[in-house]
Amino acid sequence: MDDGRIMARLEELGEELPPPPQAIASYVPVVRFGSMAFVSGQVALVDGAPLHPGTLGVDVTVEEGAAAARRAALQALSALRGELGTFDQLRRILKLSVFVASVQDFEAHPQVANGASDFLIEVLGEEGRHARAAVGTASLPLRSSVELEMIVELEPSPSS
Amino acid sequence: MDDGRIMARLEELGEELPPPPQAIASYVPVVRFGSMAFVSGQVALVDGAPLHPGTLGVDVTVEEGAAAARRAALQALSALRGELGTFDQLRRILKLSVFVASVQDFEAHPQVANGASDFLIEVLGEEGRHARAAVGTASLPLRSSVELEMIVELEPSPSS
Amino acid sequence: MDDGRIMARLEELGEELPPPPQAIASYVPVVRFGSMAFVSGQVALVDGAPLHPGTLGVDVTVEEGAAAARRAALQALSALRGELGTFDQLRRILKLSVFVASVQDFEAHPQVANGASDFLIEVLGEEGRHARAAVGTASLPLRSSVELEMIVELEPSPSS
Repeated sequence: MDDGRIMARLEELGEELPPPPQAIASYVPVVRFGSMAFVSGQVALVDGAPLHPGTLGVDVTVEEGAAAARRAALQALSALRGELGTFDQLRRILKLSVFVASVQDFEAHPQVANGASDFLIEVLGEEGRHARAAVGTASLPLRSSVELEMIVELEPSPSS
Repeated sequence: MDDGRIMARLEELGEELPPPPQAIASYVPVVRFGSMAFVSGQVALVDGAPLHPGTLGVDVTVEEGAAAARRAALQALSALRGELGTFDQLRRILKLSVFVASVQDFEAHPQVANGASDFLIEVLGEEGRHARAAVGTASLPLRSSVELEMIVELEPSPSS
Repeated sequence: MDDGRIMARLEELGEELPPPPQAIASYVPVVRFGSMAFVSGQVALVDGAPLHPGTLGVDVTVEEGAAAARRAALQALSALRGELGTFDQLRRILKLSVFVASVQDFEAHPQVANGASDFLIEVLGEEGRHARAAVGTASLPLRSSVELEMIVELEPSPSS
């Protein structure tokens, strides 16, 4: 895909890529493997603080959860561009796992996850379309309401 | 694998493939990537309604959970055949993730997940044997008791 | 990587590989797919009994959870060596998923997961560095506090 086009599209959508996450201790934000890349789990942060922390069904609405999912997807894109230096090598999104901190009788996980899925289509078009699983969790790091994990396809690297 | 043989085997087992899930909004039921395919998370549905909804340890028994897992596996096969048009290109099941809506002291996740694993072996034989993780979740879409995610190996496509 | 060096490093760290898990019913401990391998979900066991069972935020401390994560990572290595016969074919760790049984207000999942991540670096060096997601779960098999799932890269097999 074209880096300039994606950056322009993000600007159109009123989004700015946050700084890419740094490698923390023993794990890294992105691992490349041939023409796949695994992006580590992202929780929604704004200036280092969780966006809409808490639990769906208690103190976070579906709209807030969807906004957190969208933000986590933006961060996943940032992690990827931080690793690759550009979006030029990104071919498409393959798979999202969306974890939603929620109580036992919550059932709107898909609507929350759509915050991420819809955003990736808005930014990347057809290449943003992916397989997905959305499930509930008891809790997430930093009391985040949403965590997102992404697998993408890259252009084959010349050396591999 | 042989499409006719698998369809006959399903019939022997008294199972009929449900209609494949439709692409919903921004995500798709199946994504192919070389000789892998990612099948989106499936919750057990019969005629559009959840099969055995609820929570293990509260209002769903292990046997009902296993039946929901089996049903979700059947739907994952249907999603795959809907995408490929036939089972002929299916080589084997690589990996299942089974999410079980359950309370804190529930511990029989493997028995629930076996509903899916045993079924895949019954239908596909040795090619149905897979790596697996089974974990508990606070809640699932539509109050489903089980969600199943599948990665499979396909015959290499002629063009890739 | 070098099998003898890894075995010596484990001994230096005071760790002994537990017996590899046996294939149980319909799923298997490891599935190879080209130069990837999927290791099935591991819960921490010592002599067949769960290590530090329970729930983070109730009856398991972060330190105990991290110890369970470390143990689960050791078992994942054992499962892999049981399948391959040696670590010689192991190239690197690609991805960990760490599931932490925890209550709604628990937020130290990364510290728990570091028990596994740090251990893999200690044993494997740079090749142990991986992408990761750490999430909370309502419950896990056998009331385990931690479950770990691993994807690794192998040397390409001569026949594939």
